[in-house]
Amino acid sequence: MCTIVHISGRRLLERAEALAVHSELAGGLTRTSLSREYRGAADLVLEWMREAGMAARLDAIGNVLGRYEASTPGAPCLLLGSHLDTVRNAGKYDGMLGVLSGIECARALNAAGKRLPFALEVVGFCDEEGVRFGATLLGSRAVAGTFDPALLEAKDSAGVTLAQALREFGLDPARVGEAARKRAEVLAYAELHIEQGPVLEAEALAVGVVTAINGFTRMAVTLEGSAGHAGTVPMNLRRDALAAAAECALAVERIGSSEPGLVATVGRMEVLPGAINVVPGEARFTIDVRAPADAQRLRAVQSIRAGIAAICARRNVAARIEELQQQGVAACAPWLVEQMAAALQAEGLRDFRLPSGAGHDGQAIQAIAGIGMLFIRCEKGISHNPAEAITAADAEAGARVLLRFIEAFEPKR
Amino acid sequence: MCTIVHISGRRLLERAEALAVHSELAGGLTRTSLSREYRGAADLVLEWMREAGMAARLDAIGNVLGRYEASTPGAPCLLLGSHLDTVRNAGKYDGMLGVLSGIECARALNAAGKRLPFALEVVGFCDEEGVRFGATLLGSRAVAGTFDPALLEAKDSAGVTLAQALREFGLDPARVGEAARKRAEVLAYAELHIEQGPVLEAEALAVGVVTAINGFTRMAVTLEGSAGHAGTVPMNLRRDALAAAAECALAVERIGSSEPGLVATVGRMEVLPGAINVVPGEARFTIDVRAPADAQRLRAVQSIRAGIAAICARRNVAARIEELQQQGVAACAPWLVEQMAAALQAEGLRDFRLPSGAGHDGQAIQAIAGIGMLFIRCEKGISHNPAEAITAADAEAGARVLLRFIEAFEPKR
Repeated sequence: MCTIVHISGRRLLERAEALAVHSELAGGLTRTSLSREYRGAADLVLEWMREAGMAARLDAIGNVLGRYEASTPGAPCLLLGSHLDTVRNAGKYDGMLGVLSGIECARALNAAGKRLPFALEVVGFCDEEGVRFGATLLGSRAVAGTFDPALLEAKDSAGVTLAQALREFGLDPARVGEAARKRAEVLAYAELHIEQGPVLEAEALAVGVVTAINGFTRMAVTLEGSAGHAGTVPMNLRRDALAAAAECALAVERIGSSEPGLVATVGRMEVLPGAINVVPGEARFTIDVRAPADAQRLRAVQSIRAGIAAICARRNVAARIEELQQQGVAACAPWLVEQMAAALQAEGLRDFRLPSGAGHDGQAIQAIAGIGMLFIRCEKGISHNPAEAITAADAEAGARVLLRFIEAFEPKR
Repeated sequence: MCTIVHISGRRLLERAEALAVHSELAGGLTRTSLSREYRGAADLVLEWMREAGMAARLDAIGNVLGRYEASTPGAPCLLLGSHLDTVRNAGKYDGMLGVLSGIECARALNAAGKRLPFALEVVGFCDEEGVRFGATLLGSRAVAGTFDPALLEAKDSAGVTLAQALREFGLDPARVGEAARKRAEVLAYAELHIEQGPVLEAEALAVGVVTAINGFTRMAVTLEGSAGHAGTVPMNLRRDALAAAAECALAVERIGSSEPGLVATVGRMEVLPGAINVVPGEARFTIDVRAPADAQRLRAVQSIRAGIAAICARRNVAARIEELQQQGVAACAPWLVEQMAAALQAEGLRDFRLPSGAGHDGQAIQAIAGIGMLFIRCEKGISHNPAEAITAADAEAGARVLLRFIEAFEPKR
């Protein structure tokens, strides 16, 4: 009945390599949902699921779904998984590792001939990144029953709608609703994912427990000063939009650094007219603020707005701030966080908890079940990049923690 | 023998309007050197010169040149003038006012039947702005004998070389050297120009005396940090190239503001990869530093370099600073500054002196003669823009000061 010896980090990495072969891009990895390459990856995953003793199929939106039956057939499941689509020129682990480690755990249980009082299901979502149709979390929203049918008309860059893509994949767009799972069927959702940030590496840890998927606010700011001749307008008579924007960017950085967990970023900046010998009359920049608590984020956004207003008033520059998008925190269920932390400790690892700055499928699945996540260290925090890298040892440590979590799993009462 | 009553500010503005009709751009003013429109403007200027009692001609590079003979024919001249070409979508006074006011002074002397012990020559340079062939001061360099014949092969955007343009204009490119004037022929060069900055307006003055045409240093800076996910990289682990560039831009502003006369500008900024949710990995910006004294400018450039180095070292961001161009100060001749200041006072105006932040033809002419400049107030300091504006009263005040300067002119002994 010893299960944990069957976990292999090397196999996880080999399988990630095997999936990466299914790419729309020669010499790099790009795999968008419902593509021929997605089909290739899904077929491999179905095969591995069956080899692990699972009943495996595609669901109504093209997610890959495997079930390792409970000791009592038909019992509710613990759902594991992540996504099988990628961004353009992606890494090999973002998403895939969550699917592979779920299969690895089922495989270990199967090898040891062990059944649990609940089923173990593993899902490979067809579209988390949103690259093909411009909308994220398509697969997990379908499972959560929150898929908006209007998205069936969303088009890819070749003008193919999601509905057409589903038909070409052999699915019926009218039946996407059948992918939805009931609350009673899903005890919890647990996802293992690479961190995509440098925190675990900085802490010299292989695995951490995620506390929440951060909320975010995105803004666009336009500053209007007065363009002028760089040689003739004295410094004290200038209304330099770039200098004002620079001061705002530093305020964003300072506010983002003022509290643990909070991050704030100016990612774009454009300056007009943008000539070497002209004082800039206009500057446009974006702000992305994220925090593990909505109140903290909203407080930071308020500070940033007030900071920009004060800077621009002092400089006699007009400021227009437009809020582009916001999304609240998706908190991991505290009872799952505690059980995952216990699993970490059972593996002899430090109980380390961190928020997720990036978005994940759990943001959709939380509509039907409590969510929990484990993060695996990735090299230099690099992700969405061919340089994305993890070690076999870390992958193995993560899958071992996941298996310990599964075997000790107690549904919420 | 009263000359000053013949000066008319209204005529100066009317003639500026008449010249502005000769434009390559409908609904705006663009007139590049040796174009059909330049020919039209030159013909008008030739006509006005002759009407003012001057012998007028085009010189070997296409400058318009008029001579109001001295009491002793063939005596050396006091050279007045400015340029007749414009930037794209220009104002009506930048350049033209210096030519028109020179003609106005000759006209006044002629009307009063007055001859001076030196000739008065007025020049309308064919190309100061450098719009057509990408090289500035073509007309004045030819007069100064510093024209580089290699420029004859410079091409405009249609692929026409300067040599071809000269031929099409009826000139012989092989004879451009004949436009050069000898030191012995030119006692001094005096140019009236709009300020192109807001200093005179802020001082509520119509006219000021220029002390020097500022020197400049232009630099391009590239900062390399590390791109990262805006949600996952904590603030203290970032190497944000934009935040570093923002701090550098504020240092440039602070250093530029630290001493009177000095200006420093960040005119361009580009950020890579430039996505709302990505910490910028690279930022590129330009710096333009100008000062009325070379030592002051070089000190400021040194401070800026040291500031950037310190900021980037602290932020662990790599900085590469490239010097693109530099030009030393063209000081106005002190004896001409004093004579112009005396002319201002003779007109009952305040003796106010200021440096020129913009470049002017005197930068070339100083090779053969002392240079002096008068600045006229322009609205809000706006120039290189259709909104460029002056009043008839200010134009008249400027031309009156110029005439007083001419009539009292004493060549350097």
